Amino acid sequence: MNTGKFSTIICLLAFFVINTIILSVTIADEQQSGVGYGRGGRMSGGASSAREDEPIKPISINFDYNRAKVELGKKLFFEPRLSKSGWITCNSCHNLATGGADNLPTSIGHKWFLGPINSPTVLNSKFNLAQFWDGRAKDLKEQAGGPIANPLEMGSNHELAVSILQSIPEYVQWFSEIYGLDEMYGDEIITIDQVTDAIAAFEETLVTPNSNFDNWLNGYDNSISEIEKEGYDLFKEKGCIVCHNGVGVGGNSYQKFGIAKPYDKDTHTLGRYNVTKDEKDKYVFKVPLLRNIELTAPYFHDASTWDLAEAVNIMNEYQLGLKLTDSETSKIVAFLRTLTGDQPSVIFPILPPSTSTTAKPNRN
Amino acid sequence: MNTGKFSTIICLLAFFVINTIILSVTIADEQQSGVGYGRGGRMSGGASSAREDEPIKPISINFDYNRAKVELGKKLFFEPRLSKSGWITCNSCHNLATGGADNLPTSIGHKWFLGPINSPTVLNSKFNLAQFWDGRAKDLKEQAGGPIANPLEMGSNHELAVSILQSIPEYVQWFSEIYGLDEMYGDEIITIDQVTDAIAAFEETLVTPNSNFDNWLNGYDNSISEIEKEGYDLFKEKGCIVCHNGVGVGGNSYQKFGIAKPYDKDTHTLGRYNVTKDEKDKYVFKVPLLRNIELTAPYFHDASTWDLAEAVNIMNEYQLGLKLTDSETSKIVAFLRTLTGDQPSVIFPILPPSTSTTAKPNRN
Repeated sequence: MNTGKFSTIICLLAFFVINTIILSVTIADEQQSGVGYGRGGRMSGGASSAREDEPIKPISINFDYNRAKVELGKKLFFEPRLSKSGWITCNSCHNLATGGADNLPTSIGHKWFLGPINSPTVLNSKFNLAQFWDGRAKDLKEQAGGPIANPLEMGSNHELAVSILQSIPEYVQWFSEIYGLDEMYGDEIITIDQVTDAIAAFEETLVTPNSNFDNWLNGYDNSISEIEKEGYDLFKEKGCIVCHNGVGVGGNSYQKFGIAKPYDKDTHTLGRYNVTKDEKDKYVFKVPLLRNIELTAPYFHDASTWDLAEAVNIMNEYQLGLKLTDSETSKIVAFLRTLTGDQPSVIFPILPPSTSTTAKPNRN
Repeated sequence: MNTGKFSTIICLLAFFVINTIILSVTIADEQQSGVGYGRGGRMSGGASSAREDEPIKPISINFDYNRAKVELGKKLFFEPRLSKSGWITCNSCHNLATGGADNLPTSIGHKWFLGPINSPTVLNSKFNLAQFWDGRAKDLKEQAGGPIANPLEMGSNHELAVSILQSIPEYVQWFSEIYGLDEMYGDEIITIDQVTDAIAAFEETLVTPNSNFDNWLNGYDNSISEIEKEGYDLFKEKGCIVCHNGVGVGGNSYQKFGIAKPYDKDTHTLGRYNVTKDEKDKYVFKVPLLRNIELTAPYFHDASTWDLAEAVNIMNEYQLGLKLTDSETSKIVAFLRTLTGDQPSVIFPILPPSTSTTAKPNRN
């Protein structure tokens, strides 16, 4: 027994020694490269609490998801049979490979129809106060139903989309596992409400934490450079921060495009007015998120520029009535690039095959 | 020192005991569920070697890949900027979510042009003796260049596609890491040859091992049912096996569509004749792979049926001059469904952003 105890101690000791070696190697590496812990740099005492007052808040990581629902939502996000043609998916316009957007002036839809407005990114879209540029959908769930039935987008309708899922036994099983059986009929009846709920659940996971800027907010001093820090200071001083703040760095208010000077590049998109029919809501849009902004050109609802520096200058001119120096613009752009976070790591889903009762795709 | 040795022995003994417990739990689980090892069922003595003579060969798993090249190829496979519109990717028509095909009669391309022929699956395509239905590309690398420059497909051209990659520093770095610097200029010059080479390298990894049928071939008796086995016997007896054999269960010969009876459903697609201009190659096509066939409706180069049973009957009628009973057809279909293997597990790539010198997408 004594020998047993002794050998246990030896085992533990060996583990301790090995771990100490690993740790010291890691620290040595860090010191050598001057990087500090991970992307962030070493944390300095007190810095973290000081930055809790900053108007931009870091994205917190949440693991409290309904995994089965998120997995189903992911399948639906990549499901071409939700479109009339059997070819267009949510991901077609909100491509997770390219910042959650399609990087086109306006999206391509059914029969190559071109949409009327630039597609916003799906990344971090849960931080928006409402969805679409004009806020006509109150949340992601309500948004998800729109494109499926929009003749310029996926070109289908809710009845057809649901009937296709209903014809595929795997979907019937997954929906009933998550949403239960139909109360009235005791049957497995998929509803559009469930479809959009699952898509929204997946989309809510599409956040991009650990940006250099968030790491700085969290107290890792070296995760942004001096220039980037100066850019952030300018971003606050010039007034950009008034609209672009919070977790999403935007997305939490509606603002008129053209506060300081009427916006003359696009005068036919009426924005929030389409929802409220209130004259003062003409040219009012939801303030877009600035997270991952370097990945989602072209910019603005009308995609009027592909260049982030030009976008900053347009904002300053039309919203703040300011003209920035080249140095100021480039510093703000440098700051904006620190808002790019970890892109969602998604395993491409495998979808179940159609059956003899599945409606055929219609490319016309 | 003796104590040191002794404690080592104790440590090893503890590991052995723990592993034995884990193993016995696993075996108990298997016995309880009656599943045996994995999908395959328990192996019976001698069965494996007996099945080495079967005309269909299992897909062997290969880990001998150039990982960096495969990763680059994956990015390119999902890269919309290889198309003129900046919207269509290899995956648009060879969707890894749906059996490596688009499950459309013919593919949708640039400006919603509809292609002339059904898109074959990319899965297991390395087992084809050549690529395209008419075999006009000798391998996957040669194939990959086609759709990029086809005005009905991705609508771009090789110069434009390469110049776009060249304008993105991350791509320049990845290509030079894999292919080295340009010999003549000592510079990092991306070529279309490298682009198609990397795409082909990724596509070569897209195999689907571990189908129930392959497990049976490998000696796991219970991995196919009696009915499925009878279906396989019929598949051989009726003569399907003459063309559909080997690792791909097809893909290794050209055959006339209409050997026993002229194929009257499509008389304008000339097939191999377009390549050879030899009169006897009219209506001759590469025999398609039957692996994962249940996932890739509609069937045949002309997509003349969506129903696997009907496809089996058409083949028997036009190729073999046979009329199957319903029971025979359904047994063969049951066998064909055992050819569905593990679908490739792919982490959706994150693509680098365009720069100010990247050519803009052109949707027209």
